[in-house]
Amino acid sequence: MKRIPVGVLAATGSVGQRFIQLLEGHPWFEVVAVTGSDRGTGKPYGEVCRWLLPGDMPERVRNLPVLPTSPEAVQVPLVFSALPAEIAQDAEPAFARAGIAVCSNASAYRKDPDVPILLPEVNPDHAHLIPVQQSRHQWTGWIATNPNCTSTGMTVALKALQDRFGLKRVFAVSMQALSGAGYPGVPAMDIIDNIIPFISGEEDKVEWEPRKMLGTLGTGGIQLADFGISAHTNRVNVSDGHTVCLTIELEMRASAEEVKRTLREYQAPEIACNLPSTPLPPILVREEENRPQPRLDRMTGNGMTTVVGRVRADSLFDIRLVVLSHNTIRGAAGGSIYNAELLYRMGYIPKP
Amino acid sequence: MKRIPVGVLAATGSVGQRFIQLLEGHPWFEVVAVTGSDRGTGKPYGEVCRWLLPGDMPERVRNLPVLPTSPEAVQVPLVFSALPAEIAQDAEPAFARAGIAVCSNASAYRKDPDVPILLPEVNPDHAHLIPVQQSRHQWTGWIATNPNCTSTGMTVALKALQDRFGLKRVFAVSMQALSGAGYPGVPAMDIIDNIIPFISGEEDKVEWEPRKMLGTLGTGGIQLADFGISAHTNRVNVSDGHTVCLTIELEMRASAEEVKRTLREYQAPEIACNLPSTPLPPILVREEENRPQPRLDRMTGNGMTTVVGRVRADSLFDIRLVVLSHNTIRGAAGGSIYNAELLYRMGYIPKP
Amino acid sequence: MKRIPVGVLAATGSVGQRFIQLLEGHPWFEVVAVTGSDRGTGKPYGEVCRWLLPGDMPERVRNLPVLPTSPEAVQVPLVFSALPAEIAQDAEPAFARAGIAVCSNASAYRKDPDVPILLPEVNPDHAHLIPVQQSRHQWTGWIATNPNCTSTGMTVALKALQDRFGLKRVFAVSMQALSGAGYPGVPAMDIIDNIIPFISGEEDKVEWEPRKMLGTLGTGGIQLADFGISAHTNRVNVSDGHTVCLTIELEMRASAEEVKRTLREYQAPEIACNLPSTPLPPILVREEENRPQPRLDRMTGNGMTTVVGRVRADSLFDIRLVVLSHNTIRGAAGGSIYNAELLYRMGYIPKP
Amino acid sequence: MKRIPVGVLAATGSVGQRFIQLLEGHPWFEVVAVTGSDRGTGKPYGEVCRWLLPGDMPERVRNLPVLPTSPEAVQVPLVFSALPAEIAQDAEPAFARAGIAVCSNASAYRKDPDVPILLPEVNPDHAHLIPVQQSRHQWTGWIATNPNCTSTGMTVALKALQDRFGLKRVFAVSMQALSGAGYPGVPAMDIIDNIIPFISGEEDKVEWEPRKMLGTLGTGGIQLADFGISAHTNRVNVSDGHTVCLTIELEMRASAEEVKRTLREYQAPEIACNLPSTPLPPILVREEENRPQPRLDRMTGNGMTTVVGRVRADSLFDIRLVVLSHNTIRGAAGGSIYNAELLYRMGYIPKP
Repeated sequence: MKRIPVGVLAATGSVGQRFIQLLEGHPWFEVVAVTGSDRGTGKPYGEVCRWLLPGDMPERVRNLPVLPTSPEAVQVPLVFSALPAEIAQDAEPAFARAGIAVCSNASAYRKDPDVPILLPEVNPDHAHLIPVQQSRHQWTGWIATNPNCTSTGMTVALKALQDRFGLKRVFAVSMQALSGAGYPGVPAMDIIDNIIPFISGEEDKVEWEPRKMLGTLGTGGIQLADFGISAHTNRVNVSDGHTVCLTIELEMRASAEEVKRTLREYQAPEIACNLPSTPLPPILVREEENRPQPRLDRMTGNGMTTVVGRVRADSLFDIRLVVLSHNTIRGAAGGSIYNAELLYRMGYIPKP
Repeated sequence: MKRIPVGVLAATGSVGQRFIQLLEGHPWFEVVAVTGSDRGTGKPYGEVCRWLLPGDMPERVRNLPVLPTSPEAVQVPLVFSALPAEIAQDAEPAFARAGIAVCSNASAYRKDPDVPILLPEVNPDHAHLIPVQQSRHQWTGWIATNPNCTSTGMTVALKALQDRFGLKRVFAVSMQALSGAGYPGVPAMDIIDNIIPFISGEEDKVEWEPRKMLGTLGTGGIQLADFGISAHTNRVNVSDGHTVCLTIELEMRASAEEVKRTLREYQAPEIACNLPSTPLPPILVREEENRPQPRLDRMTGNGMTTVVGRVRADSLFDIRLVVLSHNTIRGAAGGSIYNAELLYRMGYIPKP
Repeated sequence: MKRIPVGVLAATGSVGQRFIQLLEGHPWFEVVAVTGSDRGTGKPYGEVCRWLLPGDMPERVRNLPVLPTSPEAVQVPLVFSALPAEIAQDAEPAFARAGIAVCSNASAYRKDPDVPILLPEVNPDHAHLIPVQQSRHQWTGWIATNPNCTSTGMTVALKALQDRFGLKRVFAVSMQALSGAGYPGVPAMDIIDNIIPFISGEEDKVEWEPRKMLGTLGTGGIQLADFGISAHTNRVNVSDGHTVCLTIELEMRASAEEVKRTLREYQAPEIACNLPSTPLPPILVREEENRPQPRLDRMTGNGMTTVVGRVRADSLFDIRLVVLSHNTIRGAAGGSIYNAELLYRMGYIPKP
Repeated sequence: MKRIPVGVLAATGSVGQRFIQLLEGHPWFEVVAVTGSDRGTGKPYGEVCRWLLPGDMPERVRNLPVLPTSPEAVQVPLVFSALPAEIAQDAEPAFARAGIAVCSNASAYRKDPDVPILLPEVNPDHAHLIPVQQSRHQWTGWIATNPNCTSTGMTVALKALQDRFGLKRVFAVSMQALSGAGYPGVPAMDIIDNIIPFISGEEDKVEWEPRKMLGTLGTGGIQLADFGISAHTNRVNVSDGHTVCLTIELEMRASAEEVKRTLREYQAPEIACNLPSTPLPPILVREEENRPQPRLDRMTGNGMTTVVGRVRADSLFDIRLVVLSHNTIRGAAGGSIYNAELLYRMGYIPKP
């Protein structure tokens, strides 16, 4: 199969590098364009980018010239955006207007009523917002986003419970990895022998994005799911992998065993299955009393599986559990690539 | 003033060492006896004990012989117990029977209806269980305990809110320090680049002990406070200082500002004030959006103050906040010493 | 090809687990027997062993019964030994006497004049000690060892320099990973925000083992290489990967460029090439001023490559450089497996 | 005693904050002026400075206005400089020219033949360069520096050995704390589960500064001490406290016991004794096989004492040992304050 040429916007940052790493050898997509800040424009990627991931930068991208982040410079049918929100604000619509499909990790348009926040195993039907978005803006391209990294794992787990038992209220307390703050991100002096009980803007996202993804797409757009979320978000001294403690009030009572079975048996909608990045299994339920742990479990299913553990009854609500998800793979670059695979299968990205 | 000779039971462990460190130079108490496991009995403390705290072991205790943990060997009016629960089970009553006052950090008797769990700034009146305990068991000594380290800080904060607004439901998620697991405790391989979302037995303690301390002492003993607690407890890579995220449903609605004012103005009962270990202030409320942090705030008030931050309204309950407390000072040895000071002032420990 | 059935001695510990992990899917060897301490004997491996590595225990070994560490129980032609030195002392000769080949990671016999310490890319000819050993002890099996984890990487690098320039004196200062201390190993309380400038017995090994491996096998056995090593060994807060700073006095003067070229061009003897575990390349020389780093470089060549960086002239001796090697892969289980592959090719292990 | 009004240049950075912290309550000096970058000028220090140290910013400095770094703005007889080297280059001579004494932690003038690098317990006589410096430049003020933080501890230890045994060659390998890189300094992503075997410019300083401090002041200036130093410098995941492994060739042979005794008995020149910051003892020799350790030993003598351990014979040179010194106290702000105390006693700073 001929591969689709793709671009990575903000390819030199930490999420950008994950895009490059995960797209290396991808069966459908081939990186042919990378963009960066003005400072690096024109130089080879291998010279501009200080590679932060274990192992070496893929050979093939070393010589790609760093381009400016504009649709004129990046003439491909699909781009992955690792742009900062404030730059994505203007740049992503410019790409969509120029007929380019944008799979974005940025938060800029997640709250836009016409832009879906997609998790293929949760709400692939929200992709049908794309034609609405195109017609409203007179775009030939489009923007689709993946959720914030902390919302990702918890939404997958909540989806399984919502389908079966209904959701009323959710308390979420996160312990988030350093890579979630980008690079250079958190100074080592601030986190050694420490935790930081605050991440700017994060609690709002965690309290809202899952409700959009778990909401219903109707003629008037997406109706937010009718349950409440309250969050504390914390930074801990972990490189990768966000852990979230959830306490959940269900519509229907359910035992811990029923909840475990429901999570274990959860299957993604068929359209999200057997894609190159489909996690196997979508949810892994661990039985050990002290799991999931980020160092041990974050790479489950190549970093794409949602790992759940400590499922137990709660004394005030119904159920308590712990969710772990790899924040820069499942929660960022990998999630965005999985979305592109879904949207290609759905026909929103033209065949090469 | 002549000082009261005291003993430290299990003086070689990590909490035992904190007792030794904090009692060095204490104006009222003087360590004259230390006990340890059989292996070390008879040898000088300075030889048996591998000192784990920054700085050197106090000179004065180096030559104390390590004694067996029995009232015959330790003939003093007051002992501090850092015993493991399973040893405390038999040993502490033996001391009480022999006429010795036991201020214990062990969990063995916290659930005993005759044994108070004391925080001087919260429930000094619970000390009146002591005569009940003595008469029931025909003891001339007694046992009083301090709470589990995680319960400590949150109970101080909840007390202020209970007094003013009433409590209905509390969700607590802890991020607990390594020193809470004793020594050797957590293997470094298990916690590097990691968190462990489980601490054996901890959630039960956190859900129960605050209700006893915030309960009412009547003729039939202590009536548990009538509110519910649900907890997740986690181990993080922090040396000292337990952080707890609390989400609180109050009896009466209250704004974040009212809650902050209430916490800030909280005063310990007069009998708990102006003791050598009285924390100043009892509760410190920080305004920065990213505090309290264990590395920066654990030593507030010499490690005895309860530090609260991020007080803000909650979307599902009423109030969210973060509590930090030094787990081996306020939550263990320091708390036990503060209790002894209170109980001395109340006349439960004879004057020297 | 039919695979050779092998046993892993002390399979439940941290190096034992690495053996299990690395032998999973090995083209020549198949784990059919695992041994453990008395406590676990008879139970399935999956029940006895608390798996410490990321990912799950290979399915295939879960149901193997844990056997006692004796040749009667473990009837296979080849065993890998992860035994503690004091147990290896008696156990390994018992296996050799029973006709079993022992590839050992234990230090017990490294100083034995008849037992080779092998690194296939350095001294495969030392394997010829095996018949000497067999005839002296009247054994039909044999013992071959791999070096201490810290000696491993530095010996590979020194070999390349010895061949070309000769060696006179070497100063070595190590910064060693936690996994080198086994499990539970270093308590987290001891290493958080800390280094420990001492590892028991390590400096002796680092000063002696490389001289044996770089020595000459003659009729009278191995003559130690005629150069001196002086070492400081330190423990640092790193999970895997030992880093060693070397300052080297050569027989012949050489520039940093010549040294880099020599390291880069180093080729293992042909007999060590194209084995399943042969590192590619044997030595990787990095040019960045701040590499090698354990987190980024330890998995080079699947954790088998010796990574060298910061090659530069020295003001007192000739050359300074930094060597990194994965301590539980290249420096332990992986090294031992590579040795077994070499010895199979050399005919010391019978074909299946 | 009336205190001398002093200024702190670059008071908002990490070393600047240490100056503020250590000068709080100083018996001789009182901070009346603080400078910062343009961005903060005119605002109160308490508003501009994000306080990084445990505990709170001293009350007294909160309301000091942040001044520009110029002698016109800061009219005091003495300033402490925490300026970056490139700014110190122009700024420090401007202060000296304006008649202000500059005790500098910056590296800009350490190599200047007229500027002393001072450690009061090592080379107080080098202060006599000050009049030479003044006359050459026609300055009424002057500049005196303290050494690089890594050079500090090792020079104190080497001084004791130089006096008694003479020095020939020294190999130094450092493991340096995060705070040595300033703030924000090292990104947490770069150092978690890692070491970085490189610190820009550090090896040059470590190889040269001790030779100047241990050199002889004659009529032609300072003659460098006639011995060689070779260094590897590494960054490790430690908050404060630089550890250096030294291997030393002496002029006269000496046993480990003689070296320990010599270090233990080392006394600072009388003029450096009994100053407010004089470390007690100047050198502490620890006997435990695994000390010094940064977390346990860095605060020895209020962070001013040089702690030595693991003194043992070396197989290639004469002696091996490990030196620990607090890098932001003894090796930066505290060292500079100690210098000012010395220079005040010597009459180089006018009485208030």
